[in-house]
Amino acid sequence: MKLLRVGTPGAERPALLDQDGTTLRDLSGLVTDIDGELLADASALARIRAAAEAGDLPPVPDADGLRTGAPLARIGKVVCIGLNYHDHAAETGAAAPAEPVVFLKAADTVVGPNDTVLVPRRSRKTDWEVELAVVIGRTARYVEDDEDPLSYVAGYAVAHDVSEREFQMERGGTWDKGKNCETFNPLGPWLVTADEVPDPQALSLKLWVNGELKQNGRTADQIFPVAEVVRYVSQFMTLYPGDVINTGTPAGVALGQPEPKPFLRGGDVVELEIEGLGRQRQELKDA
Amino acid sequence: MKLLRVGTPGAERPALLDQDGTTLRDLSGLVTDIDGELLADASALARIRAAAEAGDLPPVPDADGLRTGAPLARIGKVVCIGLNYHDHAAETGAAAPAEPVVFLKAADTVVGPNDTVLVPRRSRKTDWEVELAVVIGRTARYVEDDEDPLSYVAGYAVAHDVSEREFQMERGGTWDKGKNCETFNPLGPWLVTADEVPDPQALSLKLWVNGELKQNGRTADQIFPVAEVVRYVSQFMTLYPGDVINTGTPAGVALGQPEPKPFLRGGDVVELEIEGLGRQRQELKDA
Repeated sequence: MKLLRVGTPGAERPALLDQDGTTLRDLSGLVTDIDGELLADASALARIRAAAEAGDLPPVPDADGLRTGAPLARIGKVVCIGLNYHDHAAETGAAAPAEPVVFLKAADTVVGPNDTVLVPRRSRKTDWEVELAVVIGRTARYVEDDEDPLSYVAGYAVAHDVSEREFQMERGGTWDKGKNCETFNPLGPWLVTADEVPDPQALSLKLWVNGELKQNGRTADQIFPVAEVVRYVSQFMTLYPGDVINTGTPAGVALGQPEPKPFLRGGDVVELEIEGLGRQRQELKDA
Repeated sequence: MKLLRVGTPGAERPALLDQDGTTLRDLSGLVTDIDGELLADASALARIRAAAEAGDLPPVPDADGLRTGAPLARIGKVVCIGLNYHDHAAETGAAAPAEPVVFLKAADTVVGPNDTVLVPRRSRKTDWEVELAVVIGRTARYVEDDEDPLSYVAGYAVAHDVSEREFQMERGGTWDKGKNCETFNPLGPWLVTADEVPDPQALSLKLWVNGELKQNGRTADQIFPVAEVVRYVSQFMTLYPGDVINTGTPAGVALGQPEPKPFLRGGDVVELEIEGLGRQRQELKDA
């Protein structure tokens, strides 16, 4: 299923993208929202599936031109994996990490897939990163080697891990300073349930800036695949339903380009796409 | 006012500690919970104050032996400042930072002030850190030099920024890996409103392990005082009502001791106190 949330910010209603790929079906008669609580509730998900298959879901009223929000409400935390593609580690001048590099983004950075992204004040190095986002569906705590880590995954989405490189790497301390600016995590359009993504390591990821293809990778090139990321992170922190993991970006970010590096400015347009997970489009604007 | 939340985890009710310092007054007839929404609502806070002064608040029923939860529900993010006391920077072998070191803790690490703290599996270096926590009361975004940053602060609390040093510093990547283990942020007992803390730089902080005094600092020794921290952080990320900033720890952590360093183990008891903000007591247990 492709779950999404449509409407004005803070007042989105839950919806489902029909099998035809265009009609939005209204879920607000069945569930209050799409959040961790829903994803942890197999019977609620089964009710949605049954209603969809029976053709019982009404279309979303006035769907034309409706804004798409992030496909997940009340996100707990956003865990990010750094330097998780060989080509991206190389372009940043870093060695391939021996174990996953982990950092956090605050959930309040999450916005809709086509919302405006703000270039922070005094930013000179705002950069793009297309990433496969993993949405957790049940509590993962010290996942054991003989378990299937993917059984903790409710679904997948496109994430844009917007990053300010000067704040991230030249202002002291950890990366978090350049990862948590307002609007720095567009998510969506859809939360695609895991049953529709049989192999998360077989997806292409693409990102364009002002129409020019900048990133063109494959999740097959992840140093630590999704299953290993879930298992590994769960040894350090407990993952709850509604948590999100951004699993890293392939090569092609501005930081990896020759000088003068083409960092983002107000007016630029970024588009992102992951195979089967949909497409985002953001216009940049000065904060 | 000293606001708190009492009851079983997830079912706490809002309360107020009476001026007498012992009676708990029930706020559940006035407000649903203590959270960012309440802190941003001056009239709701005024109603609590008026009811308290008029003696209109009933005592919390069956208050004896009631668990104290964290004094704030639905925390958005926990921003932490690293190496913010000269003596602590020195004991870790780090230079005093030129600008604040910022990292994040997930809000799901927050537990009550006397709840059990779990030593993570495979942990060998679980450490303590007493910290002054600042609770945000209104949205702080690019706070200007001519503003009073403390006007964004709703109140203060004791925080325990529990840290696993091997996960934090020897496992690659950022500090976040050693800061986000389950139960790693006891908070409370009270949220003391800012009017009762006229000078956040004039507080003593103490921490004991198994009855032995380990940390004994003063917020006067912060490299970046609370006002500067709020102003600075707001240049990089937006602070919302109900966000928390842990403002750093003074010297005396296990990491700063000679070998063999006395890291925490199951069965240890940690007690923490900040002048006017109350006292915590946690027993450590193996996860």
